[in-house]
Amino acid sequence: MQDTPAPPSAAAREIVYRTRVEFGDCDPAGIVWFPNFFRWIDAASRHFFVECGVPRWEDTAASLGVIGTPLVDTHTRFVNTASYGDTLEFATSIREWRSKSFVQAYRVTRGEVLILECEEVRIFGGRHADGRLRALPVPPEIRRRCE
Amino acid sequence: MQDTPAPPSAAAREIVYRTRVEFGDCDPAGIVWFPNFFRWIDAASRHFFVECGVPRWEDTAASLGVIGTPLVDTHTRFVNTASYGDTLEFATSIREWRSKSFVQAYRVTRGEVLILECEEVRIFGGRHADGRLRALPVPPEIRRRCE
Amino acid sequence: MQDTPAPPSAAAREIVYRTRVEFGDCDPAGIVWFPNFFRWIDAASRHFFVECGVPRWEDTAASLGVIGTPLVDTHTRFVNTASYGDTLEFATSIREWRSKSFVQAYRVTRGEVLILECEEVRIFGGRHADGRLRALPVPPEIRRRCE
Amino acid sequence: MQDTPAPPSAAAREIVYRTRVEFGDCDPAGIVWFPNFFRWIDAASRHFFVECGVPRWEDTAASLGVIGTPLVDTHTRFVNTASYGDTLEFATSIREWRSKSFVQAYRVTRGEVLILECEEVRIFGGRHADGRLRALPVPPEIRRRCE
Repeated sequence: MQDTPAPPSAAAREIVYRTRVEFGDCDPAGIVWFPNFFRWIDAASRHFFVECGVPRWEDTAASLGVIGTPLVDTHTRFVNTASYGDTLEFATSIREWRSKSFVQAYRVTRGEVLILECEEVRIFGGRHADGRLRALPVPPEIRRRCE
Repeated sequence: MQDTPAPPSAAAREIVYRTRVEFGDCDPAGIVWFPNFFRWIDAASRHFFVECGVPRWEDTAASLGVIGTPLVDTHTRFVNTASYGDTLEFATSIREWRSKSFVQAYRVTRGEVLILECEEVRIFGGRHADGRLRALPVPPEIRRRCE
Repeated sequence: MQDTPAPPSAAAREIVYRTRVEFGDCDPAGIVWFPNFFRWIDAASRHFFVECGVPRWEDTAASLGVIGTPLVDTHTRFVNTASYGDTLEFATSIREWRSKSFVQAYRVTRGEVLILECEEVRIFGGRHADGRLRALPVPPEIRRRCE
Repeated sequence: MQDTPAPPSAAAREIVYRTRVEFGDCDPAGIVWFPNFFRWIDAASRHFFVECGVPRWEDTAASLGVIGTPLVDTHTRFVNTASYGDTLEFATSIREWRSKSFVQAYRVTRGEVLILECEEVRIFGGRHADGRLRALPVPPEIRRRCE
């Protein structure tokens, strides 16, 4: 019998972050000003790790040298607009683990309506001796919690 | 005599938007929190049209039905971090004109250092009768000013 | 028998808005960057009206000429700092109704800890014929719902 | 001969911070959403110290224990609205030095038009041993540069 690999979706844990759109998140056209979507996406990214039991970045800085998960690439496709009063759901998962980065993905909906899809590459950021940011190998302790 | 198309770069007008990074633009890691880059990218997009002589969106709404240039896709690659006190330059151009959209691109630098590169698809947004947003054909009056 | 006015606090309806502080709301010192408190205060102000049954500003613009509740004065006292992961409660009330303005107040806490207190003067904003903003008399329909 | 104190205005150095209002700084009513004014006020506060030769907060943290100038009180009066395309000037000064705090004031104008006036109390923030923020005595080195 042939070995069938598990479908990737089997492994991908999904955690939902919810937010409500406020009046001030909208621009003169009355719709969400797009940088605010990235504000919520970043919150959804952090929320994912919190729900997986990853502690505050101050704590991981002390234990693992990880100061956060800086973004190195984002590709986002905006499908429908949103406005104040809307509740949005950010279904968040880690689609791929690489040696020194990971792919985090978001599917954002208002009820049945797709608002946007986003796929990012992030790193676990540490510091060089001179303070500059560098990509650390993905810490197994963190990966284990998130799978 | 053969018709030789002008190289794309000949046609691509480039306009630079400058900003200074402020303390509050930075996160607890001391570097620019990435949604702020999109804030400046949106300002650079608008600045491009202003410098080309495109009037306020209230005016184009009245004359052409154009209420703005909503984003439909963005792909951004972050190369180096920035922090407060830095002056950033956003070299902005329109890389491609399509029938109902256009590709706007940004190369962001601090002096000689590349900070990020971004390529977006935007539309000229109008309204359906029920108020929903729709993509208008690129208005020739605007395209002519921007080339 | 003498007419005794009801104490002001008897009439003051209080509605609580909750928010969670995100990583990106904090500055390089690791604490909430203060303009974000005003972002939430504005959301708490709108939330108050929503909970009282006041419709969207587009609707009140059509029915009453009210386009929103612009701020004319704010006095805010910051008592304790907050950081990401905190849940904040904004206890919101209208402390005083004047003929063309009202006083909205916020007491912001994290559990038992007082974070800040804010008192604002806002107006119900309408438009002059030339588009400029003006203060409308407080609409009785709105006041009635909010008391 | 009687000792005559110099009038306070003689000592108050004024430094102007300039910003341009962007499309995304405005709300659905088409005017600046007020938390953005506080974003610029905070930038104007920092700009004041930069122009007086005060180094980055990382440097003052190392030399003086000062991690920044957290806000403890703000009173702001909004007089006229602003919209995208406007250039605003924030005339910034330190109105009063106290032993453990100072009063910083802003007069914000667009050309001849007064937009807002703001008066704040800030401290020079340091850390308790447990990390909590505390007000430091005003460092004479900083005060001298700013007068």
